[in-house]
Amino acid sequence: MKYFAISFKNSKLIILDQTKLPLKIKYLQIKNIQESFRAIKELKVRGAPLIGVFAAYSVYIGAKNIRTKSKPAFLQHIFKDIAYLKQCRPTAVNLSWALDRVKKKIVQNKHKSIKELITIIRQAAESIHKEDIKLCKNIGKFGAKLIKPNDRILTHCNAGFLATSGQGTALSIIYEAHKLYPNIKVYADESRPLLQGSRLTCWELLSRKIKVTLICDSMAAYLMKKRGIDKVIVGADRITKNGSVANKIGTYNVAILCKYHNVPFYVAAPSSSFDLSLNSADNIPIEERDPREVKFFCGKASAPLGVGVWNPAFDTTACNLITAIITEKGIIRPPFRKNIAKILGK
Amino acid sequence: MKYFAISFKNSKLIILDQTKLPLKIKYLQIKNIQESFRAIKELKVRGAPLIGVFAAYSVYIGAKNIRTKSKPAFLQHIFKDIAYLKQCRPTAVNLSWALDRVKKKIVQNKHKSIKELITIIRQAAESIHKEDIKLCKNIGKFGAKLIKPNDRILTHCNAGFLATSGQGTALSIIYEAHKLYPNIKVYADESRPLLQGSRLTCWELLSRKIKVTLICDSMAAYLMKKRGIDKVIVGADRITKNGSVANKIGTYNVAILCKYHNVPFYVAAPSSSFDLSLNSADNIPIEERDPREVKFFCGKASAPLGVGVWNPAFDTTACNLITAIITEKGIIRPPFRKNIAKILGK
Repeated sequence: MKYFAISFKNSKLIILDQTKLPLKIKYLQIKNIQESFRAIKELKVRGAPLIGVFAAYSVYIGAKNIRTKSKPAFLQHIFKDIAYLKQCRPTAVNLSWALDRVKKKIVQNKHKSIKELITIIRQAAESIHKEDIKLCKNIGKFGAKLIKPNDRILTHCNAGFLATSGQGTALSIIYEAHKLYPNIKVYADESRPLLQGSRLTCWELLSRKIKVTLICDSMAAYLMKKRGIDKVIVGADRITKNGSVANKIGTYNVAILCKYHNVPFYVAAPSSSFDLSLNSADNIPIEERDPREVKFFCGKASAPLGVGVWNPAFDTTACNLITAIITEKGIIRPPFRKNIAKILGK
Repeated sequence: MKYFAISFKNSKLIILDQTKLPLKIKYLQIKNIQESFRAIKELKVRGAPLIGVFAAYSVYIGAKNIRTKSKPAFLQHIFKDIAYLKQCRPTAVNLSWALDRVKKKIVQNKHKSIKELITIIRQAAESIHKEDIKLCKNIGKFGAKLIKPNDRILTHCNAGFLATSGQGTALSIIYEAHKLYPNIKVYADESRPLLQGSRLTCWELLSRKIKVTLICDSMAAYLMKKRGIDKVIVGADRITKNGSVANKIGTYNVAILCKYHNVPFYVAAPSSSFDLSLNSADNIPIEERDPREVKFFCGKASAPLGVGVWNPAFDTTACNLITAIITEKGIIRPPFRKNIAKILGK
């Protein structure tokens, strides 16, 4: 059986509930925009590119639910839905990127009938979906060129088929490289607090018959010293004009460890993760989440309830710690400002 | 109510079961050497200095249980007990240091009666215990000289009253500094996989009315960048001749982050944690523990059961990453080889 993170068939939007992994494989049908919002907020669906695809389809689900024959009322409602979804999670830029793209299509076609507009929204979402599948594959192929036989590769969080609608970004490279060199060795950071590494990356790789060794985040430095790591590859939630990156909390940590141990540090992300309106990582909004994510572990209290907690969901890594950024259009190396503009053609 | 990690009164050896914290405060009486072994192995009692004190008392408990009137049989039995306890956990040197000290006393007095020997063992344990209480205080006082008003201090794992029979090593410094500057800000790494930071350090500091903010291990780098950290202070399980340190897994990680962010990295430990027979950190045996510690939390699976796991309980930090080592005899700064010999008088 082949698992998937998202499916859209016969106008039904279905996602794998990632909060239940690895213990349960439970698919959910999303029936309205409120369910979409909650699915993103509660991380039932997560991963920057996947959130983008999911949000685009959610606008379609929302549009189908609108019970009006008035075009202005329809448009007002749909734009409200889009604005509502957009502020659901602040860090990953793909969410607003995808919603803006759908909105632009609506605006361009606002003279058309409601029925036609609903079809246009569906087509816009399907096209984002199709592109995502293709670009994941391309990121994998470009990235695989960097991998050598017997490479020991560490990844952080989950940037695989559970984070996209295709075969992933960072893990797409693992998938493509594994076809060429089945003896690469993959390590996964568990990625506290929400354990996307242990719960999702390990499950995903094992489901594709790729062996993986799990470590706690605190073990990455000693792993590099003791066993050796040849490459680190992670995904990204937002990349700025100068090549700085926001990604899952702990990414900056690993990037510093790479610098110290002379290990190349690669970021894999589609062009939709670039936000060229921002000059540097300091401008990226960083989501802080519920302290209970840190005080509880799988529903059990792991800290005194009265303790203070700082729980940023992401961190930022300055471009000087990044060896290269692997996109669907090619590998971008420093100087990033110049080469991002060149390769992305923006 | 004042909690304690260990108590020895009226020949009763009582410990706080640290595996139950912070949810339950449960004290256990240790009645034989097998219970001692299990208590150490299962981390009911942990922390290098505390294990030393506990092991010494355990030899006494074991000795009391020996049912023989033959001195050679008694000695044979007691030396077997000591050897048995000694191999329980390999990394912290305090365990063998304390057991060797008790053994030496026995050997020096082997001409005495069994009854007298049992008293000598008790006295040896009590003297290790008393010294530990005093040296914890002294470490705190020396270390507090390094702290400034408003300092933001991060600690890893637990090196407090739960790790010693006194007021701790790293946390002793916090206790003494807090009396001088109540506005210092303390952060604790949760210290996966066994969460000694969240379960023990947070509980311990709150029990002494000291505010603490909990972070996941993966957040330490971003904490340094975003909020600022002025000092990191950790304990040690073993320190070599050149000032390299074995301590809880993740310590090396934090030490690298300190180097990168120009944050002083301090190690607090008694002279009994020094192993001057070893030249460098590479020689320290590192305990690897059960993969289930990483795959489960409180009995709940947090990773697919088929995944491989690497679970070193400690890591080693080379001396070049350490700003100073704070002992009961004073603060040792580089060059460590020379200054360790000078200050410890060894």
